Amino acid sequence: MNDQDAFCAAAAALLGPRGFTQDEDLVGPWLTDWRGRYHGAALALASPESTQQVSDLVRLCSQFNIAIVPQGGNSGMSGGATPDTSGNAIVLSLRRMNAIRKIDTAGGETGDNNGMSGGAGGKALCEAGVILQSLHEAAEARAMRFPLTLGGKGSATIGGLISTNAGGTQVLRHGTMRAQVLGLEAVMPDGSIFNSLTPLKKDNRGFDLKQMLIGSEGTLGIVTAATVRLLPAIGGRVVAWAGLASVIDARKLLVHCEAQAADILEGFEIVPDECLTSVLDHQPDARSPLDARYPWYALVELVAQPDQYDALYQRAEDILGSAMEAGLLEDAAIAASESQAEAFWHLRDSISAAERAIGPAMQHDISVPVELMAQFVDQTVAEVEARFPGTRAHAFGHLGDGNVHFHVLAPAGAVAGEWELAHGRQISMFVHDRVTSWGGSISAEHGIGQMKRDELGRLGDPVSLAMMRSVKHALDPKGLFNPGKLVPTGPA
Amino acid sequence: MNDQDAFCAAAAALLGPRGFTQDEDLVGPWLTDWRGRYHGAALALASPESTQQVSDLVRLCSQFNIAIVPQGGNSGMSGGATPDTSGNAIVLSLRRMNAIRKIDTAGGETGDNNGMSGGAGGKALCEAGVILQSLHEAAEARAMRFPLTLGGKGSATIGGLISTNAGGTQVLRHGTMRAQVLGLEAVMPDGSIFNSLTPLKKDNRGFDLKQMLIGSEGTLGIVTAATVRLLPAIGGRVVAWAGLASVIDARKLLVHCEAQAADILEGFEIVPDECLTSVLDHQPDARSPLDARYPWYALVELVAQPDQYDALYQRAEDILGSAMEAGLLEDAAIAASESQAEAFWHLRDSISAAERAIGPAMQHDISVPVELMAQFVDQTVAEVEARFPGTRAHAFGHLGDGNVHFHVLAPAGAVAGEWELAHGRQISMFVHDRVTSWGGSISAEHGIGQMKRDELGRLGDPVSLAMMRSVKHALDPKGLFNPGKLVPTGPA
Repeated sequence: MNDQDAFCAAAAALLGPRGFTQDEDLVGPWLTDWRGRYHGAALALASPESTQQVSDLVRLCSQFNIAIVPQGGNSGMSGGATPDTSGNAIVLSLRRMNAIRKIDTAGGETGDNNGMSGGAGGKALCEAGVILQSLHEAAEARAMRFPLTLGGKGSATIGGLISTNAGGTQVLRHGTMRAQVLGLEAVMPDGSIFNSLTPLKKDNRGFDLKQMLIGSEGTLGIVTAATVRLLPAIGGRVVAWAGLASVIDARKLLVHCEAQAADILEGFEIVPDECLTSVLDHQPDARSPLDARYPWYALVELVAQPDQYDALYQRAEDILGSAMEAGLLEDAAIAASESQAEAFWHLRDSISAAERAIGPAMQHDISVPVELMAQFVDQTVAEVEARFPGTRAHAFGHLGDGNVHFHVLAPAGAVAGEWELAHGRQISMFVHDRVTSWGGSISAEHGIGQMKRDELGRLGDPVSLAMMRSVKHALDPKGLFNPGKLVPTGPA
Repeated sequence: MNDQDAFCAAAAALLGPRGFTQDEDLVGPWLTDWRGRYHGAALALASPESTQQVSDLVRLCSQFNIAIVPQGGNSGMSGGATPDTSGNAIVLSLRRMNAIRKIDTAGGETGDNNGMSGGAGGKALCEAGVILQSLHEAAEARAMRFPLTLGGKGSATIGGLISTNAGGTQVLRHGTMRAQVLGLEAVMPDGSIFNSLTPLKKDNRGFDLKQMLIGSEGTLGIVTAATVRLLPAIGGRVVAWAGLASVIDARKLLVHCEAQAADILEGFEIVPDECLTSVLDHQPDARSPLDARYPWYALVELVAQPDQYDALYQRAEDILGSAMEAGLLEDAAIAASESQAEAFWHLRDSISAAERAIGPAMQHDISVPVELMAQFVDQTVAEVEARFPGTRAHAFGHLGDGNVHFHVLAPAGAVAGEWELAHGRQISMFVHDRVTSWGGSISAEHGIGQMKRDELGRLGDPVSLAMMRSVKHALDPKGLFNPGKLVPTGPA
């Protein structure tokens, strides 16, 4: 019996048949990311049912030098949950640990994130495998809400969202996942259990280990549970779709909305007209909210306190009216119903799918300082299209976060697969170079994973990279936690 | 010439006479903390004028194995900026680096803390030695404010506030220093310069090194500059003083205020009647805001948006009126003027000084989960007084943060100095044991420094302590950055 066999026998004994399998039919689906871009190999799929089992399994892996790729909903965008092809790793699924252990809605305030944010609310103690949608539903059933959502909410898990510091469409007001985590539990590479689940609003007992683990993509620790904050449910929302002359005007409209309604502004997304065209072409049922077409659109969401919906509607009309008087927008439509609000959002959320139907594209998830994003888009779209003739560059998304999805579409007639291979790397390097020169980030919300690790190594600040390598080596000296992800290899 | 002499010669050449001195008259004042509790020794006082000089000096120290104790305003509470007595360290003062390099008030939103918090505002790029009061004044001159303040604002520096993750009286709504830092620059133990000064609202390029450095008390890096957030100036404030039957009622009043006014509640402090008596005895000019006396008081501060002061006053009356109807408070006074508001706050801020005049006391800066603090105080005051007959325990401060200052006053007639030596350690261990058993922190906002390092070693979670030691050793393998502070020594 070789070492891998001995490990598998011990792990099977530890976790039982529901917790450990080498059956290729069961393991296979988890060796490819959901977009089918990354493919790996694994000895087995481990699905522990408790933090203690995770800890015991990690100790076993350490003993046998088996690498561990933690996985939640397998809905990441950067290959962070797909093992490499060496076959000396297990996939450690947290999906069986899906209990919401406790929801606390009592009390007028929340113990919070070591002083990160204040406000009324409650909290939920979730195991890592709780699916985002389940948390939303559990909160809603108690007249609360969890203030983070994103497209993959039906599969993304709390553990995965924490490990990747996920963003989404509510970051503008409520912050990324980092701001939602009040307490954390994780298993470290030596099998020890880091327990910081009890929320304290103030705690100055040393380094902020919790924040160090959030966003570390499973390279430092495996998140097993978390206490997250909940907010009171809203009393309704008003969603508006505004037609704009330019992306610079979108920035001005954002400033206008922030100045007048920072307390209720939950979303501010931008969409260029070409993206709207793609969506309308792709979805026969979709309709443009405005009769005329404009170069850019802004999708604005304002939310009401309970019982204040009518006042909100009036306020939204005032804000948009004054914006139009100031020449910041050309025309605007306010959704007349919740289903129309959904339809407005659906236009925004359908862009990626619509563009995939057109043909190949290189996609980039980037940020620059919020106040520079409109200029960045204006300038960089032109630069990319000039540098790579025939391509079209589309930037859409979270203008209020200084984060857009910057897609570069292939020239008409390009063959999917071939075009990316021939031009993709060059295009992405060009975009990332521009982002870096604007002081921005090559990963705003999707993480580094395996997709951007080399780019991070190429463009990252050498001091930061050295610090990351030192911390990684200190906490995971054998390098068994999610190898090949996030942390670029060092200088030779 | 021995090594220390060689180092001093090289450092003097590097920094010049204004930047480096061994003159005992000039060095001496910085070898004792402001409360006179800790005394150390140092080779010299270094006062570099630029980040590059700090970097060069750190490299020199590394070369000669000289320890570095970074120091801002020397107004810390835990001896974190006082060197040990070995004499093989320099005090590195950041006080000369006191430029506010840039204040940005334009724009309706702020690039912020990697998604930690949102909202309208601006930002200030400060060198580490900027005094808090100076930043307040610079912001006020531009109709902005920096939303963190504390007693030592006339001496505390931005660098020190960041290194200790300082709190204060506005944490309830705005968070601790950690939540104010949008960007950071620090010199690492190898002399490299970590530069993350450009604020990005979203940035998922790896471990959150910025948050790791915040609150690390100079043991991992020396903060040299930071970009901090600014908020629009307020339109005024309403300060109320409420008489309460119990600390449990204080908690209920807090919940009431959070439910009705979370958006404008900036302060919620509690004061037991014994503390008010101490202040009134100590300050002949001070007056109780209410005619009658009650077991407890709450100091409540609500703030207005610009031009909304009258509406705020009405709202405050409504909130307190409904609280009285609900039986949550016995009586309340709303300050009729800004000077009366100051007087109310002065009562709260004078407690420590008044109690010092009475006699010796052991002071503890502790937190427990916010929702448990009232019960904790109720129960632990009785336990302490029973366990140490003749003592009186007073808990006052930031109920809304789950953080009180828990003072145990010596029995009448106890001799200062002797009493602390004879009983202090036992009392503090008892209090810290209780805090720990409630899931709390033995340092809520004052940090660990040298004062609580052994207690952290005794009571801290062993997994967290091991992680801290690993990170410390990885980034500062020679152990030259603020030795003897924060990070407890490991198991033998």
